[in-house]
Amino acid sequence: MPAAFKIALPDSALAPALREKIDQKTKPLGALGRLEALAMQAGLVQQDLMPEIRAPHMLVFAGDHGAARAGVSAYPQEVTAQMVANYLAGGAAINVFCRLNGLALSVVDAGVAHPIPRPHGNPGEGTAPVFISARIAAGTDNYLEGPAMSVEARDLALARGAEIVRRLAGEGTNVLGFGEMGIGNTASAALLAHALTGAPLAECVGRGAGLSDAGLERKRLLLSRAFARAGLVAGETDARMALAEFGGFEIAMMTGAMLAGAEAGMLLLIDGFIVSVAALIAARLAPALAAYCVFCHRSAEPGHRAVLAALGAEPLLDLELRLGEGTGAALAYPLLVAAVSFLRDMASFSTAGISGKSEGGV
Amino acid sequence: MPAAFKIALPDSALAPALREKIDQKTKPLGALGRLEALAMQAGLVQQDLMPEIRAPHMLVFAGDHGAARAGVSAYPQEVTAQMVANYLAGGAAINVFCRLNGLALSVVDAGVAHPIPRPHGNPGEGTAPVFISARIAAGTDNYLEGPAMSVEARDLALARGAEIVRRLAGEGTNVLGFGEMGIGNTASAALLAHALTGAPLAECVGRGAGLSDAGLERKRLLLSRAFARAGLVAGETDARMALAEFGGFEIAMMTGAMLAGAEAGMLLLIDGFIVSVAALIAARLAPALAAYCVFCHRSAEPGHRAVLAALGAEPLLDLELRLGEGTGAALAYPLLVAAVSFLRDMASFSTAGISGKSEGGV
Repeated sequence: MPAAFKIALPDSALAPALREKIDQKTKPLGALGRLEALAMQAGLVQQDLMPEIRAPHMLVFAGDHGAARAGVSAYPQEVTAQMVANYLAGGAAINVFCRLNGLALSVVDAGVAHPIPRPHGNPGEGTAPVFISARIAAGTDNYLEGPAMSVEARDLALARGAEIVRRLAGEGTNVLGFGEMGIGNTASAALLAHALTGAPLAECVGRGAGLSDAGLERKRLLLSRAFARAGLVAGETDARMALAEFGGFEIAMMTGAMLAGAEAGMLLLIDGFIVSVAALIAARLAPALAAYCVFCHRSAEPGHRAVLAALGAEPLLDLELRLGEGTGAALAYPLLVAAVSFLRDMASFSTAGISGKSEGGV
Repeated sequence: MPAAFKIALPDSALAPALREKIDQKTKPLGALGRLEALAMQAGLVQQDLMPEIRAPHMLVFAGDHGAARAGVSAYPQEVTAQMVANYLAGGAAINVFCRLNGLALSVVDAGVAHPIPRPHGNPGEGTAPVFISARIAAGTDNYLEGPAMSVEARDLALARGAEIVRRLAGEGTNVLGFGEMGIGNTASAALLAHALTGAPLAECVGRGAGLSDAGLERKRLLLSRAFARAGLVAGETDARMALAEFGGFEIAMMTGAMLAGAEAGMLLLIDGFIVSVAALIAARLAPALAAYCVFCHRSAEPGHRAVLAALGAEPLLDLELRLGEGTGAALAYPLLVAAVSFLRDMASFSTAGISGKSEGGV
């Protein structure tokens, strides 16, 4: 294992002052609902009554899964590499949403199986995503036959994820979005969700990128065989062990990246099902992690429910997305900006000369 | 009555081509969930495979309610004028969110009772909201004693709302957000919701800007007396008649503005409870109106449920806001931008060289 991460809960001594500041804004008490909780979280994580978003960055981790070749996905494994090329060309949904919302984008090869094709098209000036090669191997091994990765490979992935984030911390980034791409990775996430939460496997398995009824049935069967093969006890499995058994390199690398992000005091934008599984693993390794997470989107994948419940999380958005790539995080990001901005920029009752409550009327 | 508005359903002949374009984007079918429906709606309303947002504008309508002096609100009536001054000074939540998201902001005096104080502070260069005086009177009459407004005043408010929007249409605006401010206007909206939908009055009445239990009880009692006074039948009331009985000038003016917006082929961003009531009245006058509406936020006010159900609407956001001002619309607006942008800017499978489904695996 790499050295443990030092992640403490944000000091709550600032909470009363933040609450007072929020309550003095020109609005009824609590009227900004969840944005008030977000503003409070941003203030606590940054330990500042005037939190500020600096150099926000979206990291999309891509990796392949040995089990994909056994038929757990509706798409061929080549699509992972093709989609990485699409990100680099600027043509994917995550490119569009990052450009719109002012998020820098890096695409991390955590272990893509096929060569990444030369990108078609041109991402446009000044908006080219950065490509980071941090590959552990050409995809994981098939967890139907044995562990997806060795403990050494897992620890290397955790360490490389952390290293990427420490570099961004050095560049001033304090808000980090997480996305992923990997044919077969809802299957991997379903096994991890089952192992870590103890929710029935059937409730953790979904259609991913679009399986038919028959495909879904086959996926359930294969995953139940994989789980039996590993000999783990659902709900009582060590997170590190589960990660090596079923994880993708992109999931392991995200986990390390989240841990380093929380250690650096960043706010972490958590996308859908797969990213949430990485967050759950990270939270098992460092329980204070969840205090740094902004849960962005409730995935249509059924397994997300158990993972969110285990994290005590309630996502900001439910737009019925089932795309991944960090799209839910990029779409929720403007809400974080809005939360920080109202805390910084709204007038207070005293400065604006607004009367308070006078319940009862005259 | 002013001349009827000519509002047709958008021609659906373009729908198959829009569907095909959406489905060719580099993502699994349907994976962008509700953004796909939004993109489809924008394409149909604009009758364009490349819809475009031009000069987006937020209109906040302010008006006072005679009944507010009888104690239906937790705040004194002066707050309406004070909040208008706060908007003009740039200090309110709606200012912050409009600035962030690139929405122009106009504040309409539809009938504020008290003089609008000289704004404190300075809205900042280039971001000053426009003030539009379209006032009908210094607040409505008290609907506990008689109709809130005459039919002439109602029709004047409808006409003035339409006129404001026709001017914006002339300036090229094709996306219009709606917000409101008026002490006592959740009470007015509750009566209108009860009259138009037939939902029990008790289920339409909420705490507004923050009534206590006792205040809520009093509000229910007063509104039930007002409804009895008017002698209408809940669920079978003509929308125009209900509007004159219980409406605020800001609600009537919004209604006219929405009708003119739909007539001009604009997309209409509908905020929470009160704005939705105006949309419901508008939809009763012109049933095709709802096709132009983007329902942005589910209000914490309980009456919103019945109104949304009557409109067949499912809002994009649920952030537990209960502020009004158009804040829910301004916060949802980036999702419309994202929907239009993915339709315009994402790569398609053919141009990006991405493989299709191969369910079953190899």
